[in-house]
Amino acid sequence: MFYNPKAKDHGLRHDPLKSLVIPRPIGWISTISPKGIPNLAPYSHYNIVSINPPAVMFSAGSLTRDDPRKDSHRNAEDTGDFVVNVVTYDLRNEMNLSSAEVDSNVNEAAITGLELIPSRIVRAPRVAASPIHLECKHLMTVVLPCVAPGEPRNSIVIGEIVGIHISDAVMTDGRVDVEKLRPVARLGYMDYAVIDKIFTMPRPTVD
Amino acid sequence: MFYNPKAKDHGLRHDPLKSLVIPRPIGWISTISPKGIPNLAPYSHYNIVSINPPAVMFSAGSLTRDDPRKDSHRNAEDTGDFVVNVVTYDLRNEMNLSSAEVDSNVNEAAITGLELIPSRIVRAPRVAASPIHLECKHLMTVVLPCVAPGEPRNSIVIGEIVGIHISDAVMTDGRVDVEKLRPVARLGYMDYAVIDKIFTMPRPTVD
Repeated sequence: MFYNPKAKDHGLRHDPLKSLVIPRPIGWISTISPKGIPNLAPYSHYNIVSINPPAVMFSAGSLTRDDPRKDSHRNAEDTGDFVVNVVTYDLRNEMNLSSAEVDSNVNEAAITGLELIPSRIVRAPRVAASPIHLECKHLMTVVLPCVAPGEPRNSIVIGEIVGIHISDAVMTDGRVDVEKLRPVARLGYMDYAVIDKIFTMPRPTVD
Repeated sequence: MFYNPKAKDHGLRHDPLKSLVIPRPIGWISTISPKGIPNLAPYSHYNIVSINPPAVMFSAGSLTRDDPRKDSHRNAEDTGDFVVNVVTYDLRNEMNLSSAEVDSNVNEAAITGLELIPSRIVRAPRVAASPIHLECKHLMTVVLPCVAPGEPRNSIVIGEIVGIHISDAVMTDGRVDVEKLRPVARLGYMDYAVIDKIFTMPRPTVD
């Protein structure tokens, strides 16, 4: 089949778009508002964008034209930092619960029962139960072009990674051990995958 | 452990950075140069960045200060388009082979033996053996800040998805079927995973 994603003329009950770029890593973003209210939310439109400087992006979508910034986005800009926590299989339910649409004054960490602990460099807290934390300073926000008059504009929030925590519990012989980490990935629809098996391919050499 | 990724003071033999944002989807980018030379290369610093407009990004790193654009990046800008092909487990070796560093005049598709076929809307070709193609028009390039004087600057190439091909062979009951698609994901080091098992979590409702 062939279709135009803007026209959504796929003729299917469920839009397949999010199932075509898979598996997506989940950036579980913790922030704090200028008033001190923590926020925790998962973003799978998330990835490394640069190794030097070490930087990640998350795409926060948009709410409305008048209030286009979701809490994670607003807090990252207003306080200048955020933390990415890695979602392990054991934390899948807490991650899912933290994706609920709740008021800005609500602390998702409190809903999930997760403990937030201070970071080393940034003001945003981190999820104690997650074995990996990337402390990030807000580097820039990219605003995408307007789709149609009156429509909200989507943004990409980019942060430089300034400090990295890795629990010894997920390391083996100086490497991050995927079978110990068991990260959760986002697929399409309401589907997820856990990564606990790997295969290896050497870099190719071409004559 | 805690370390500063810029200083790379992790004390490990292998830099763990790329193993902390996993699993990454692989955007297998096909382009054509203004002179008509096809190019094919895999990028795992790749993801959806927006649903409306439908858009993806790939981060192409940089070569040198004088010639910072890799072929995929240069072609996407110079011709205005690119195609993302999905890497299935059956195509893993061809994908890996296409990641070799070769001269701009070399067509990676020819090295791998893959057939490239015309797209519907864009000039860039697509990989016939891949069951999913995203035809993209170059929307913008984001240039990240300079790390140090004389260093090349990293770029993020963003394209709007203007046409989507999905093979019926990977669909079941109107949905993309992950167990049929078997997409390959990039992990850290020289590790990969194939996604062929899923689990489901419903969207949470919070009282």
